[in-house]
Amino acid sequence: MELLKEKILNQAKVVSDQILKVDSFINHMIDPNIMVEIGQEFASRFRDEKITKVLTIEASGIAIALTTALALKTPLLFAKKKIPSTLGQFYMSNIYSFTKNETVGICVAKEYLTSDDRVLIVDDFLARGEALKGLTDLVKQADAQLIGVGIVIEKMFQGGGKALRGAGVRIESLIKVSSLADGKINLEE
Amino acid sequence: MELLKEKILNQAKVVSDQILKVDSFINHMIDPNIMVEIGQEFASRFRDEKITKVLTIEASGIAIALTTALALKTPLLFAKKKIPSTLGQFYMSNIYSFTKNETVGICVAKEYLTSDDRVLIVDDFLARGEALKGLTDLVKQADAQLIGVGIVIEKMFQGGGKALRGAGVRIESLIKVSSLADGKINLEE
Repeated sequence: MELLKEKILNQAKVVSDQILKVDSFINHMIDPNIMVEIGQEFASRFRDEKITKVLTIEASGIAIALTTALALKTPLLFAKKKIPSTLGQFYMSNIYSFTKNETVGICVAKEYLTSDDRVLIVDDFLARGEALKGLTDLVKQADAQLIGVGIVIEKMFQGGGKALRGAGVRIESLIKVSSLADGKINLEE
Repeated sequence: MELLKEKILNQAKVVSDQILKVDSFINHMIDPNIMVEIGQEFASRFRDEKITKVLTIEASGIAIALTTALALKTPLLFAKKKIPSTLGQFYMSNIYSFTKNETVGICVAKEYLTSDDRVLIVDDFLARGEALKGLTDLVKQADAQLIGVGIVIEKMFQGGGKALRGAGVRIESLIKVSSLADGKINLEE
């Protein structure tokens, strides 16, 4: 994960002691090579788990889920934040965004997430864990099996990972940020 | 493009004479192999054009833009439908969605789309051309050069492509649907 680490240290911007901006290579402009590296790394960590579906949430998770699914040879499914008029029957969960200060419903079509699925959830950030709670709730509603979670950047000091790991969820985070204090990115080794 | 064509004919659902649903492999659940095929095809059609950036719009365009950018060895940029609080200076354009009956603003950060860029726009559908007009407007605002447009499925009978081609824009559509009447998908050969 040298390319990712290098980009984080050189290009990520500390907006505040809570917010790290990575929109020059992950969630606005995207470096496809980094996405391939990330996808291959998640795939290698979950290679033996017989994953059948990679689940994420629009929009920033899609590129990550695509390269992961490609490496694992599975389809991917992205939860939508608006219910399309053509969706049919769906599972829905509400998540609260601290960054945007709003609650949104996320949904997946029932036909694409079933009790036969062994699910790997992936996303760009793990902060307080709200999005992840919503995604794990969708997996539970579908009676599918949650095998684990792959996160590109976990902000350890915001606690979302702690709660989910405490609940027995396997979380693999590629970059663990221990603090953004004083405008500096401190990584956990 | 045999895999794509086969999926369209076997899995796409005709919702009405205006709407084709491809959410089992393109815009909800995604088959990564189809995305790779699509990206390689767009790349081969624009290989000699010295593209510097692939531009799309969240969320369904991202997977397509990623595989295209990977094949062209460029970054990709996806326009956002909500203005993030951390975005900085941006270009903005309004687009109207007939499917959703609403107008949304789309935006890109000024620093990631500049007058040095030779831009390939890609998206999943071309219908009336509203999203595409918004994206071309962003390219114009940035004083970047629009080299062409890659579309997975163009609904020829909705006229969006006609208007843009008339304005001199090169549009490459992989699947051209001439009609969805009577529940049937008719392709232009």
